[in-house]
Amino acid sequence: MTDGNLTLHTDKYQINMMYAHWINGTQNERAVFDAYFRKLPFGNGYAVFAGLERIADYIRSLSFGEAELAYLSEQEERYKPEFLDELRRFRFAGNIHAVPEGTVVFPNEPLIRVEGRVFEVQLIETAVLNFMNYQTLIATKAARIKRVAEDDVLLEFGSRRAQEADAAVWGARAAYIAGFDATSNMLAGMKFGIPTKGTHAHAWVQGHDTEQEAFDRFADALPDQVTLLVDTYNTLDSGVPSAIRTAKKLEERGKRMNAIRLDSGDLAYLSKRARELLDAAGLPYVKIVASNDLDETLIFNLKAQHARIDTWGVGTQLITGGSEPALGGVYKLVAREKDGKYVPVIKISGNPEKVTTPGLKQAYRIVNRETGKAEADYIVLHDEEDVRLGKRIKLFDPVHPYIHKYVENYDAIPLLQPVFEDGELAGGLPTLAEIREYHRKQLELFWPEYLRKLNPETYPVDLSVAAWELKMSLLHRYTKQE
Amino acid sequence: MTDGNLTLHTDKYQINMMYAHWINGTQNERAVFDAYFRKLPFGNGYAVFAGLERIADYIRSLSFGEAELAYLSEQEERYKPEFLDELRRFRFAGNIHAVPEGTVVFPNEPLIRVEGRVFEVQLIETAVLNFMNYQTLIATKAARIKRVAEDDVLLEFGSRRAQEADAAVWGARAAYIAGFDATSNMLAGMKFGIPTKGTHAHAWVQGHDTEQEAFDRFADALPDQVTLLVDTYNTLDSGVPSAIRTAKKLEERGKRMNAIRLDSGDLAYLSKRARELLDAAGLPYVKIVASNDLDETLIFNLKAQHARIDTWGVGTQLITGGSEPALGGVYKLVAREKDGKYVPVIKISGNPEKVTTPGLKQAYRIVNRETGKAEADYIVLHDEEDVRLGKRIKLFDPVHPYIHKYVENYDAIPLLQPVFEDGELAGGLPTLAEIREYHRKQLELFWPEYLRKLNPETYPVDLSVAAWELKMSLLHRYTKQE
Repeated sequence: MTDGNLTLHTDKYQINMMYAHWINGTQNERAVFDAYFRKLPFGNGYAVFAGLERIADYIRSLSFGEAELAYLSEQEERYKPEFLDELRRFRFAGNIHAVPEGTVVFPNEPLIRVEGRVFEVQLIETAVLNFMNYQTLIATKAARIKRVAEDDVLLEFGSRRAQEADAAVWGARAAYIAGFDATSNMLAGMKFGIPTKGTHAHAWVQGHDTEQEAFDRFADALPDQVTLLVDTYNTLDSGVPSAIRTAKKLEERGKRMNAIRLDSGDLAYLSKRARELLDAAGLPYVKIVASNDLDETLIFNLKAQHARIDTWGVGTQLITGGSEPALGGVYKLVAREKDGKYVPVIKISGNPEKVTTPGLKQAYRIVNRETGKAEADYIVLHDEEDVRLGKRIKLFDPVHPYIHKYVENYDAIPLLQPVFEDGELAGGLPTLAEIREYHRKQLELFWPEYLRKLNPETYPVDLSVAAWELKMSLLHRYTKQE
Repeated sequence: MTDGNLTLHTDKYQINMMYAHWINGTQNERAVFDAYFRKLPFGNGYAVFAGLERIADYIRSLSFGEAELAYLSEQEERYKPEFLDELRRFRFAGNIHAVPEGTVVFPNEPLIRVEGRVFEVQLIETAVLNFMNYQTLIATKAARIKRVAEDDVLLEFGSRRAQEADAAVWGARAAYIAGFDATSNMLAGMKFGIPTKGTHAHAWVQGHDTEQEAFDRFADALPDQVTLLVDTYNTLDSGVPSAIRTAKKLEERGKRMNAIRLDSGDLAYLSKRARELLDAAGLPYVKIVASNDLDETLIFNLKAQHARIDTWGVGTQLITGGSEPALGGVYKLVAREKDGKYVPVIKISGNPEKVTTPGLKQAYRIVNRETGKAEADYIVLHDEEDVRLGKRIKLFDPVHPYIHKYVENYDAIPLLQPVFEDGELAGGLPTLAEIREYHRKQLELFWPEYLRKLNPETYPVDLSVAAWELKMSLLHRYTKQE
């Protein structure tokens, strides 16, 4: 959330490669990069793509200002002044296709395809990955939590443990896309229109002579928004009884208390006892909010124990991704211009799943017209016609090609949509509410076996015969060369 | 790195508590909060405090602008317009003490102490914790890596996997404080003056017809800054031999190649073979840089295998904290104004280590004058004189008080230093170079048993008798009350 120009939010090697291209006179040659990830986080069966609006804002604002150029002029690389002049004139003028935010996505399919002058497509790698990796990670974590919480209310409470301010704010947005109902972060609320929620801290209770006085004073101030934190001293002996007295006083004023909040201790036991006490006091409408280092596994177990929790406040484990704090998204060259036309390129690796899939590609979601469910994602070379025309296609596993089937009577939904054309935004971006609704509908496309939290089935991401043959031919060419 | 005002980078409950104080007419009562953490991350024996400069910038810029006020006016809480007027006039006018950035710190000692009107000390909790938690986490991780890498060169390469832009930039700063030598992030370099380093990506090699051509062209462009990535096709059969030919061509021009970079495969084996090939070619001066999901454990093991690596590029595992992506720093009320003077307050918990230490406190580092080494950190009530005067003091374990000793002939270094006085910065903040040097010297204060990576000794953080007795008396008062 720091002020300013993000053009230098890039790795030095991008600048050095831009410089080397410029020195060699190749800066205007064109290239195509795919951004994708290879491995799903959290053992989940899918990821939720997010970060595109952030990327679009960044692309539109790219510009080397005088401060940036002055800084570059001092580097040990001693870039030539004419190169800095070239940067001064720099604007992104390339083409970007991407899957819409909120899309359910899978490993090894292109999520963002960038086409343009090597000069510009190289510069943006670092920031594009930084934005895509973080928001997609958090949206995926939030989707797991949403799946477990079902129709309970989910609140994003992670700001104090987020990895700096941007993570708090953009993480709140990613969580909202995947089904969270509100955030505690006011800046995220202001920036994106996400509903905000907040109660009070232990300090409010400690700041008064008694818990009862603290609760009554809070209810006086915000009589329509009373959620009371009941665990400062003793939840069942002091907190809940005091909250009940406050709720009764509110009733005398014709008001209803919203909820109590539990923030420590055995949430299964305490929520059940608190529910009994509230019900016995004639307060069945007072909800119970729980927080305290929750994640999808704890929520799943608390629900299995019939904890009486209506609303879940989720912080650290959501906003950081917990034990998996990075999506390993990569940005790989798949084609480059040579003698005026594109040639596909490959990156070999001793690690077979790290071998790239060459060429300018599109990915289709193949939806069975009878079931309405997605059968597979199908990656084709850009100029292949069959899938677009709805012809019979062969789906096969690119790692074990003998596993195959033929499909017809399908809808083929193209996943990569134009976002920038010649540097200009191609149509408007959807609103956050539209993205959230689109995500909800995305989930309906998939059989629940792909979506479950534990040991989901692997959804097929297949290559067309042409895409597979191109990959094999380049692979053999390079491994033979050695 | 988003534009703008961070005043609403706070949780809604802070605003709601401010509002409830304002409604109740208690907004000008004063209060004291301590920020600290309870548990060291990564199994480390210490943490490295960082984030203060970021906090100071934030405090100085706090201001509710018209956009913020308009947003607040739309909330379901329906804050009164007079409250928004109060916010319009808001400036932070409190007092902040903190340990200097780069200080070696331990659990349960105050790292930041905030004193002021409850109205202002409540507002800043979220952002203060957000900044302190992240930079302290990353500085601590970096310190672990530095301890293992010793005098090898350490490069921060994490931007693409960082949790959004702020994390990339402020994380690079935290890593530099704890001994990293450079970052790849250009914005961090520009903002903080951290040296920046960068080579080239696989895409540079893929973008040419042959690896040799790619290397030669890169060397042509940046003949004084040549580090070549040698694993695009085959490290030992193609990458290193091509790099050697490029180095020889550079020698003909009177230039020396800096390094080769290994980014995949068995780094122990490849670095030894690459070293042999370079040495056999008469290129003993060409260094070897390694990267690929490194952390302190991998570096430790690679060094134990006598890997011939001179420079380590560390990315994801550093910039996110790896499997522990959050420092659980908290911000707790320890004293509040009542009838014009401060009374200490406590927060009870069923979990004993979560009970707070009440009162306005200072922490001293007790340094043995004979050894020059730190014996313990010693937390006293603010008005205690003995330790300041160098008198004989009793050090005892607050959890097991029978474990004790008396010390004299010590230097007592006060850890909390004034940062803001009545809302004004108290003197200048140190430069980043000064912080980095101060951190290096801090480590010399401690016996190596406290600093080692695996199973470090627990460094004592003790309470004075008076601080301990105050805590016990409040604890008994509240537990008896139930």
